[in-house]
Amino acid sequence: MDNHSNGRIKGEDSGVVLGVDGGTTSTVCVCLPHGYTEPVKCLSRAVAGCSNHNSVGENLAMETLDNVMGEALSMAGKDRSEVQAVCLAVSGVNHPTDQKRLLDWLRGKFPSHVKLYVENDAVAALASGTRGKLHGCVLIAGTGSIAYGINNKGREARAAGAGPILGDWGSGHGIASQALTAVIKAHDGRGPLTSLTDNILKELQLSSPDELIGWTYADASWARIAALVPVVVSSAIEGDEVANKILHESVHELAESVTAVVRRLQLCGEDGKGRFPLVMVGGVLESNKKWDIGREVIKCVSKVYPGVDPIHPEVEPAVGAALLAWHRCNYMRCNT
Amino acid sequence: MDNHSNGRIKGEDSGVVLGVDGGTTSTVCVCLPHGYTEPVKCLSRAVAGCSNHNSVGENLAMETLDNVMGEALSMAGKDRSEVQAVCLAVSGVNHPTDQKRLLDWLRGKFPSHVKLYVENDAVAALASGTRGKLHGCVLIAGTGSIAYGINNKGREARAAGAGPILGDWGSGHGIASQALTAVIKAHDGRGPLTSLTDNILKELQLSSPDELIGWTYADASWARIAALVPVVVSSAIEGDEVANKILHESVHELAESVTAVVRRLQLCGEDGKGRFPLVMVGGVLESNKKWDIGREVIKCVSKVYPGVDPIHPEVEPAVGAALLAWHRCNYMRCNT
Repeated sequence: MDNHSNGRIKGEDSGVVLGVDGGTTSTVCVCLPHGYTEPVKCLSRAVAGCSNHNSVGENLAMETLDNVMGEALSMAGKDRSEVQAVCLAVSGVNHPTDQKRLLDWLRGKFPSHVKLYVENDAVAALASGTRGKLHGCVLIAGTGSIAYGINNKGREARAAGAGPILGDWGSGHGIASQALTAVIKAHDGRGPLTSLTDNILKELQLSSPDELIGWTYADASWARIAALVPVVVSSAIEGDEVANKILHESVHELAESVTAVVRRLQLCGEDGKGRFPLVMVGGVLESNKKWDIGREVIKCVSKVYPGVDPIHPEVEPAVGAALLAWHRCNYMRCNT
Repeated sequence: MDNHSNGRIKGEDSGVVLGVDGGTTSTVCVCLPHGYTEPVKCLSRAVAGCSNHNSVGENLAMETLDNVMGEALSMAGKDRSEVQAVCLAVSGVNHPTDQKRLLDWLRGKFPSHVKLYVENDAVAALASGTRGKLHGCVLIAGTGSIAYGINNKGREARAAGAGPILGDWGSGHGIASQALTAVIKAHDGRGPLTSLTDNILKELQLSSPDELIGWTYADASWARIAALVPVVVSSAIEGDEVANKILHESVHELAESVTAVVRRLQLCGEDGKGRFPLVMVGGVLESNKKWDIGREVIKCVSKVYPGVDPIHPEVEPAVGAALLAWHRCNYMRCNT
């Protein structure tokens, strides 16, 4: 951070900043003192459920966001008048209209002097790896997946992140739904036998693949399906071919999302050989050392773009959101 | 129908039978006079929305079923005491527990003498093609898809029909969601350009592929997505390669569902060369003569099982459900 390399923003010694990472599985809000020192120390951290409006609907998503911010403030012993800036980085924010709707709602929740920012959660995830500087690419693979990038001219691009109906096959939901499909296909005679059948039924305490249909549609939550990823990974490690094929396809999908973004933004320069940071975030990329999906994705990307520089962030995306709010707020001299 | 080949069941000259075909797009109830003559003449026919509990939830599904039966009876000038038998054939009935729950609910809706049957909608669709005799295979491809068969020993088998999360790729929902995915992939740089983009955006009156994400998750109805199938078919006819590939894969998936059922039930005898009826039902199989998905499926199946005998039913599945109720009711001498 060039303009406060002493680790402290001038004149900022009171008030707090809120950073929110709103995912499809959980939502995290951190409260940071506005007088910033390295290493980053959070005053408080609150956790709630899903805040992706495409998964749980807008009302529930907003309620979750409101509660998690209120809880973080209360844990830090602060109230809304002490907030200098808020950055909501939420999955499912895909279009300027999504952004505007959330911003309008947020406006009603804080005093008018508070600086407010709404982004897709990928932006905060990138910031968590680059310490607030927006440059490079981030890949998130949790319940959902998305690749997002921004180049040094400020041009942005994204790939995937469109949810389960729109081909988000590399995500946790994608991996798990393909595993469930493989169980159904093995059961009805359309596919090869797989140890996924026993392993998934055991995990869900069901006695027959027929019961999977009812289980699947009993609850529309995407996270509930994606929670089966560890079973797919352990089946692959045991040597199950079907599970291995699903994971390899997931790696291919995730790598393709990254290369599409890098290509469109020319993040590796015109010759395709320049270096660029690739921030790796999400449970799918960290799930298992023996079958390391994240490592395989990097291998795959580096075949096309050898300048890839993988970053596993030391701070979480919610802190990235707070750093982003700060960075922008400071740049815009909002408090001077 | 062996036991009433004069077209009239002995002793059955009063009362009515209700047949219900409950699909993911719509639900049809027909009311037939219990004194049966050929050709089948319905006293009334009522139509309502989706009654697949996996798509709209159980309460709404049951409300729809109740309303559509009430309307059919009222249109026929009959009341519930005049009903001899009811067959509910509903998509989403995949497990004995689904069947029992619906049967218990139905029991409370009619006087105790009424014979009640609950089946998957595939059973009624088969009966609509075989005039009540349960033998052979049926393929339904509408919003969802399923292959169901029963052999001459009464053994049943099914394939697919597990809904969009569980790999129902040959269905209308499967075709349309792959088309939407292709639009997203073309837009974000992961896939080839396709005329599906312009054609689908025009159909939905949207201005950018980014808006597709919000559109897709604004409403969880499977039928709404599946309604895009005609756009995919017309794009394929125009020569779009991506659309053609999606339709060919759908044909392959549907044919595979049929061959899995035929193989498991040995419907073609041990040598695989015997004849068997294949009843073809649903909008996807009848959508277009220039790109005839149903014809392609039959071609594909006949390469494996040359004895396939395709039947395009003259009566609708709801009538099949009523014929089924009759057949069983008569066999069980419920009214003698």
